[in-house]
Amino acid sequence: MKFATEYLWFNTRRHREYINITDKVEEVVRRSGIREGMALVSAMHITAGVYVNDAETGLIQDIDEWLERLAPTGPDYRHHRTGETNGDAHLKSLLIHHEVILPVTDGRLDLGPWQQVYYAEFDGQRRKRVVIKVMGE
Amino acid sequence: MKFATEYLWFNTRRHREYINITDKVEEVVRRSGIREGMALVSAMHITAGVYVNDAETGLIQDIDEWLERLAPTGPDYRHHRTGETNGDAHLKSLLIHHEVILPVTDGRLDLGPWQQVYYAEFDGQRRKRVVIKVMGE
Amino acid sequence: MKFATEYLWFNTRRHREYINITDKVEEVVRRSGIREGMALVSAMHITAGVYVNDAETGLIQDIDEWLERLAPTGPDYRHHRTGETNGDAHLKSLLIHHEVILPVTDGRLDLGPWQQVYYAEFDGQRRKRVVIKVMGE
Repeated sequence: MKFATEYLWFNTRRHREYINITDKVEEVVRRSGIREGMALVSAMHITAGVYVNDAETGLIQDIDEWLERLAPTGPDYRHHRTGETNGDAHLKSLLIHHEVILPVTDGRLDLGPWQQVYYAEFDGQRRKRVVIKVMGE
Repeated sequence: MKFATEYLWFNTRRHREYINITDKVEEVVRRSGIREGMALVSAMHITAGVYVNDAETGLIQDIDEWLERLAPTGPDYRHHRTGETNGDAHLKSLLIHHEVILPVTDGRLDLGPWQQVYYAEFDGQRRKRVVIKVMGE
Repeated sequence: MKFATEYLWFNTRRHREYINITDKVEEVVRRSGIREGMALVSAMHITAGVYVNDAETGLIQDIDEWLERLAPTGPDYRHHRTGETNGDAHLKSLLIHHEVILPVTDGRLDLGPWQQVYYAEFDGQRRKRVVIKVMGE
């Protein structure tokens, strides 16, 4: 049984940003030598997420506007009594989910033709991390 | 360590459809001979999802109406500039999530009494796929 | 290869409640003796969820209000024709998701500094269960 654990660091220029990390996850799988198994990709923060969808610029803007509609930026969150201002980022993270788990078959991510893995930053401009753990043989 | 990887194909008659695949996932687990482990069930498309909930017709309609309310069909998505018309299906897929991972105990899916696994099609009437990977021993 | 499977029972005093179960999940990992692997934490009910986010009281209220806004309590669900009154709880469960899978590294949950695991009860005041399965070596 083999394991590989690697961490990706991000420090986005914008407050919200969507970064395609499919190639980086594929690289971790390749380096692991694992042919059959599963790859867990998980944000280590409560104001960021990881999801699988399309690498299409218009759609990414649609996703961003949709998240802002369902979990809007605003001054009125109770969480802000702690001095924080990022209540919306927590809700966006819950909505998009913080992790995905991907099948590994024949040494590759077993994804459909349009499936890409994204890191979604909802409270950026600081150093943040994603853990990738591959498990199999 | 044992692995089993199988694919389910769908080609729904309706544009949106919700299909109970619990028995099919159970069959893959049974055929695998795996007694302890985990079963990953993941849509291979960016306009479909997999979720766990109740096999109750009224509730399934409630879910469909709720998804349509939070991620409505509409002409105004930026994604449609590519010629696509399925922006809503991408958002519905993100909301419901594209995969679940299920515990396998004593050779069975270790689910609660009402938990059923569903394939959720949001842009159907074409051939689409789900991957099931069971890992354990 | 090692496995550990344990169940947590809940019977909340309130109809909706959010319970931090991080220590309980850590205990299961510790007892398992597993140093490298993954821990699946999954509600066994269709009106409850499991999520990862902050242990901050104000935020937990924000989350509860947000869930109530997007998946409101109400008399008008089709599901209620069965005699049930918990249509909203099913939708809240779908929104927050019913399970998380967590990396285990060096015998500990490999979480970020603010990440806590929560059981989210949406239809409580009855006995309900969560399954924790750790797999690795």
